Amino acid sequence: MYRFEPIGRIRSCFPQKFGIPRQAGLVPQATAVLELFAPFGRAEALAGLETFSHLWVVFVFHAHLDRPWHPTVRPPRLGGNRRIGLFASRSAFRPNPIGISAVRLDRIRQDGDRAEIDIGGGDFLDGTPVLDIKPYLPYADAITEAAGGFAADPPLLLPVDFAPEAETACRQSGDAGLKALITGVLANDPRPAYDARRDGDAVFGMRICDLEVKWRVHQGRVAVLSVAPATRDLPPSAALPTTDPEP
Amino acid sequence: MYRFEPIGRIRSCFPQKFGIPRQAGLVPQATAVLELFAPFGRAEALAGLETFSHLWVVFVFHAHLDRPWHPTVRPPRLGGNRRIGLFASRSAFRPNPIGISAVRLDRIRQDGDRAEIDIGGGDFLDGTPVLDIKPYLPYADAITEAAGGFAADPPLLLPVDFAPEAETACRQSGDAGLKALITGVLANDPRPAYDARRDGDAVFGMRICDLEVKWRVHQGRVAVLSVAPATRDLPPSAALPTTDPEP
Repeated sequence: MYRFEPIGRIRSCFPQKFGIPRQAGLVPQATAVLELFAPFGRAEALAGLETFSHLWVVFVFHAHLDRPWHPTVRPPRLGGNRRIGLFASRSAFRPNPIGISAVRLDRIRQDGDRAEIDIGGGDFLDGTPVLDIKPYLPYADAITEAAGGFAADPPLLLPVDFAPEAETACRQSGDAGLKALITGVLANDPRPAYDARRDGDAVFGMRICDLEVKWRVHQGRVAVLSVAPATRDLPPSAALPTTDPEP
Repeated sequence: MYRFEPIGRIRSCFPQKFGIPRQAGLVPQATAVLELFAPFGRAEALAGLETFSHLWVVFVFHAHLDRPWHPTVRPPRLGGNRRIGLFASRSAFRPNPIGISAVRLDRIRQDGDRAEIDIGGGDFLDGTPVLDIKPYLPYADAITEAAGGFAADPPLLLPVDFAPEAETACRQSGDAGLKALITGVLANDPRPAYDARRDGDAVFGMRICDLEVKWRVHQGRVAVLSVAPATRDLPPSAALPTTDPEP
């Protein structure tokens, strides 16, 4: 038995699991802040990290604690209906729910014994506990000749169109990167692979920061229908996709 | 506080820390066996893993538990005399002593609810506890454009020559890969970077499996002096390089 205390935590734009990029790097526009608690964020412990472009985040899938693991999973990449072994997947439901993600290192801000690191391309639920960070070492970590099994290539991206109201809402949000973020997230088609509603014109909704984004997919294109301030609290466990009536 | 139980353990040729490759992938000849305990090694939990060429091992630096972490380290890559922040390094001395290594997946052998996975290119102390294994996903994990800071390139390799007696001992060992393994390990110059004996003709010794290998470095070439069955027990904490009198 090994015991680990978090050294930090991630503040991300993803307050619920539905819609989080399925791997790190898929949505470069997804920026987040990695807070290092005192004393781990002291300047000398980070000296030199700024010379690396990417870092590894070792973290806990904290929304999956106390859920039993199953030996097989149905990864979205296989259409959600084929089972493979858990250890052949990057599923969050693991005997030890530890994740590793390589992210872009944008900036380090010191604040005494604490620090905040701006990262990009993450796939983290807001509040994710961080166990460790490490520099990404291309000569050891970038195995370009590796064979990627059933997930050899990145997932295909869908084109994303914004309804005029959604476009306007992005512009008025004051967040210059919001439209690009929504585009990046939805281009990866976060809909559950096994959901029968995929075949219809169902509207899906997800929370991005404090906004509710609604969209549908039709003939392989994403249509963003609305982007609006979220009006309801998220349930304590916002694990499942929300279904909303037609707007 | 998070608690994790190992799902397995690694049997490697490195019973002491001195001489272990400094990163995964540096010594492809270094093969090891990753045992998955029951029930984690059951066939269905591994189904599909064989389609990947590489996997991530998430492990505990178990020889470093209960040792305090220091905010700075002196990595061998910087000559051992320049300090950088711990989090800018892959040092084993971390607040949470968790390591991640990408290794070659050679073969999976099932044995009921247990399994043994032959891996290559590891950097593991014998007995290393395993917390998780994951498939290596090139599209997410291989960031070819990453800037590697002070460790941008793999370390230079030294040429390795075998004395006739050492060559003979390798041949007679019955292990066809032994000479290549010793070559791979010593080409990476495992001598401590900060050791004054580097300037002399000091003989270094390390344990590889149950053999004692002795070598010296002269004018940038490694000379393997002897390869012989180890005659003494390793101390409980075999952390430091051994110095042996001239043979």
